[in-house]
Amino acid sequence: MSKMKWVFSLVLRILALGATVSAAIVMGTSREKASFLSLSFEAKFSDIPSFKYFVIVEAVASLYCFLVMFLPARSSLWRFTIISDLIFTMLLTSSIAAALAVAQVGKYGNSHAGWLPICGQVPRYCDHVSGALGAGFAAVVIFLAILLSAIYSFLNPRLI
Amino acid sequence: MSKMKWVFSLVLRILALGATVSAAIVMGTSREKASFLSLSFEAKFSDIPSFKYFVIVEAVASLYCFLVMFLPARSSLWRFTIISDLIFTMLLTSSIAAALAVAQVGKYGNSHAGWLPICGQVPRYCDHVSGALGAGFAAVVIFLAILLSAIYSFLNPRLI
Repeated sequence: MSKMKWVFSLVLRILALGATVSAAIVMGTSREKASFLSLSFEAKFSDIPSFKYFVIVEAVASLYCFLVMFLPARSSLWRFTIISDLIFTMLLTSSIAAALAVAQVGKYGNSHAGWLPICGQVPRYCDHVSGALGAGFAAVVIFLAILLSAIYSFLNPRLI
Repeated sequence: MSKMKWVFSLVLRILALGATVSAAIVMGTSREKASFLSLSFEAKFSDIPSFKYFVIVEAVASLYCFLVMFLPARSSLWRFTIISDLIFTMLLTSSIAAALAVAQVGKYGNSHAGWLPICGQVPRYCDHVSGALGAGFAAVVIFLAILLSAIYSFLNPRLI
């Protein structure tokens, strides 16, 4: 891998690390106490399996980004990071899609299924979830950019 | 692209076409009438945004698989299908993750959010959704195999 391409890849991976760490922390700290009629309850991310999956995937992807940054520019392992990058792009995509689907139910409810929206009762919790989804989406876009730059290098082998 | 690799790719794409068409049809035909107390209602896929997204993505991916099969073995466009394959793998992954997250709520409900499970009232509807998710998962695995075989060719250029 050329020095310039290595620096470009490193910058993208630092950005990806920032996005995944932010997404994991913002989702992991999303909790709010509220009371409805005479009932008091606390909404937290671990109540919803899709949000737990989101936090786990973002945390593991953060660790991966962190470790890959220590790979030397001349390592032959760089050629194989395209496969691990692909797997993590798919995991991140699935985590954000699953969390977004449930967040949509939380925000708008579903009258057909009889599921009521909950964001009216816990608005700060929902804001946290929205922020985490934004950071998660940024992480997917950065991982896609890393993958596309690797594919571009393969299509133009002189650039590797 | 060598003749053998073209035939292998064609077989994978025929399998992917079968999986995406099955997923779209099985999800698109998921509807069931039921009555609860004195209320009568019909559950259908279009009631849930994630299921609509699933059907649209599977249908567009089917069309893509069908069109790519007509690409001649010697076309230079084959090198670029890796990018479109990547985009469709991500779209299929997101569609199945979103549908699975909502289907999980439909099956088990969520006591924290006050969402009741609905599969007890409409079991055949839920069976259809499960079948569609199975076919959608198979489509993702086949698309991943197509992508990995393309990456393997790039890593071993003599095989292209």
